[in-house]
Amino acid sequence: MALLYKADPERGRSWQALFAEHAPDIEVRLWPEVGDPADIRYLMAWQPPQNLGDFPNLEVVFATSAGVDQFDLSQLPEHVPVVRMQDPGIVQGIVEYACMAVLSLHRRLPLYLHQQRQGRWQEQPWQPARHTRVGVMGLGLLGKAVLAQLTHLGFNLRGWSRSPQQLDGVSCFAGIEQLPQFLGQCDILICLLPLTEHTRGLLDARTLGALPHGASLINLGRGAHLVEQDLLLALDNGQLSHAILDVVQEEPAAEQHPFWKHPNIWLTPHIGAVTLPESAFAPLLDNLRRHQQGQPMCGVINKNQGY
Amino acid sequence: MALLYKADPERGRSWQALFAEHAPDIEVRLWPEVGDPADIRYLMAWQPPQNLGDFPNLEVVFATSAGVDQFDLSQLPEHVPVVRMQDPGIVQGIVEYACMAVLSLHRRLPLYLHQQRQGRWQEQPWQPARHTRVGVMGLGLLGKAVLAQLTHLGFNLRGWSRSPQQLDGVSCFAGIEQLPQFLGQCDILICLLPLTEHTRGLLDARTLGALPHGASLINLGRGAHLVEQDLLLALDNGQLSHAILDVVQEEPAAEQHPFWKHPNIWLTPHIGAVTLPESAFAPLLDNLRRHQQGQPMCGVINKNQGY
Repeated sequence: MALLYKADPERGRSWQALFAEHAPDIEVRLWPEVGDPADIRYLMAWQPPQNLGDFPNLEVVFATSAGVDQFDLSQLPEHVPVVRMQDPGIVQGIVEYACMAVLSLHRRLPLYLHQQRQGRWQEQPWQPARHTRVGVMGLGLLGKAVLAQLTHLGFNLRGWSRSPQQLDGVSCFAGIEQLPQFLGQCDILICLLPLTEHTRGLLDARTLGALPHGASLINLGRGAHLVEQDLLLALDNGQLSHAILDVVQEEPAAEQHPFWKHPNIWLTPHIGAVTLPESAFAPLLDNLRRHQQGQPMCGVINKNQGY
Repeated sequence: MALLYKADPERGRSWQALFAEHAPDIEVRLWPEVGDPADIRYLMAWQPPQNLGDFPNLEVVFATSAGVDQFDLSQLPEHVPVVRMQDPGIVQGIVEYACMAVLSLHRRLPLYLHQQRQGRWQEQPWQPARHTRVGVMGLGLLGKAVLAQLTHLGFNLRGWSRSPQQLDGVSCFAGIEQLPQFLGQCDILICLLPLTEHTRGLLDARTLGALPHGASLINLGRGAHLVEQDLLLALDNGQLSHAILDVVQEEPAAEQHPFWKHPNIWLTPHIGAVTLPESAFAPLLDNLRRHQQGQPMCGVINKNQGY
C-alpha cells in the first residue's frame, strides 16, 4: 500500500520521513519513481499526473494546497474524492501576510517608503484602525481566520461570501446582488476566494470601480481572480491607490510583466502560505485513517462547486 | 483661568473646540497669543516656552507626548508637576506600527520588495511566527500593549526593562546585567524605551553585536537611543539584516543623512503615534479635574527618573 507524492521534492522527503516514523504501513513514493502503479492507493499532489487511469487502485487524492482550481476535476474518476490540504500552517501564513498587508496600507507604508527614497520627511494623515474599513471576500477557513486577527487589531470589518454567513463583529454580505453595497464600504479589499467559474475574473473594472475612490486591494486568492489590465487602469486613474499581490495570472510572472516595476504595486512570489509538513502531517494522517475506517473525511471538495 | 497650548496649531484648534464644548470654564489660548500671563494656570506643550517664570500662576504642565525627554525638567519650577499624554490613540498608533514592522521583518518584506524591483520571483524560507523571537525593550504602557498584540499574532516573546516585571507569556529580563542574555534571544528587537541618561546611546555596537547574527531592529523610541554610525556598521557587516526606524537623532533628518538611501533601512518621519485630540481629550480633562479637586493625577513624571 503506497502513497504517491507529486509536488516539491524537498518537502516530499519530509513527508516520507514523517510517514516512515508515524505510519510505516504506508510507503511514500516520490514522483516520478512510481514503482508498480497498482500499489498506489493515495495520491498527494499540487497537480495530478495526466493519466490517472494508470493507477487502478487509487482511492483518494490529497491536494497539497487549500484551493484545488489547478485540478481538472472532470478528469478524476468519479469515485475518487479530492481532499483539500487542511494545514494550520497555511492559515497561519495567510493571517500573517494579510495583517502585514492591511497594516502597511492602513499606515501608508508604500507612500512613506516612496517619500524616503525622495528624501522627504512628511507626515501623512492618520486615523486609528477603527476608522479603516477592511472587507474580506471569501469567508471560508482562511477568511474567517483573517477576520478574527483583524478584529484584535481593531479594524472596522466587512465580509462577503456566496452564501449568507454570520460572524461576530463583522458586517456580512452575500451573493452577487449584495456585492456593490459591500464594495462601497471597503477602504481595503482582501480577496481570499476560491477560484471557480463564478469567481474567475471577478476583480474587474466594475468591481474595482465600486470601491471607494483611493481604496487598496490585497490579492491572496489566485491570479485569475483579477483582470490585470483593469487593475492597471484603476491604479493609473487614481480609483485605486495601491495593490499588494501575492499571485498573478501566470506564475512566475514574465520578465516583461508590468507589475514588477509599477510604483503602486507590491508583488510577492506566491509566498502567502506554504504547506509545512511539520504542521500538515497530523490532520492529513487523521483523514487517511478515517478513510481506511470508512468514516467521512474532513475537507472533501465538492466537485460541482469546485471548492 | 486659562490653558496655554504650544504645539501643532491645527491640533490646537481641535483642543480649543473640545474645551469650549465640554469644559467652557477653561479658556484655551494658542501660543504665541498668550494674553495676560497671570491667567495661565495650565500649559500644554511639546516644548515649553523658555521663561516659565513669566507665568506666576502656572500649576501643571501637560506634555503633548508620552515621553518628555525633550523637556529640560531642571528648568521647571519644582512645585509644578509634568504629566505625560495618556492618549489611547498613542497606544493604538504604536501598536499598529510595531505589528506592521514586526510582520514585515518576519515575512521578509524588505527582501521581497528588493527582489520585485530586480524582477526576481524567488521564495524565501518561512517559519511560523511562533519560531520568530521578538524582544521589546521598555515595558511601560506602550511596551505592554505591543506585547499583548504580538501575543495574538503568535510570536515568541521577550521583554526587558530597568526593574523586574512579570507578563503572561513573555520571558522578562531586567537590568543591565541581564541585557546580553535578553539580546541573544531576539531575532527582532523593538526599542520602546523612555529617553533618559541611562538609555541614551544604549543601542550601540555592543548592544547590536549581542543580537543573533542577521537580527533586525525597530526603533520606536527616540533617535538618541541609537548610535547611528554603529547601526550603519552592523548593517554593512551583516550583523544586522534590516532596520525600521521611525526616529532619528535630528528630526527632520538632514538631506545628506545616510539613512535616506540605505537599502536595508526603512525610515518613516516619526509617525508611529500622533496624539489625536478626539481620543486624548477625555483622559486629559479627567486629570485636570482631579488636580482641581486636590486628587492625585495619573501619568505624573518622576522628575528624577525622567519618565
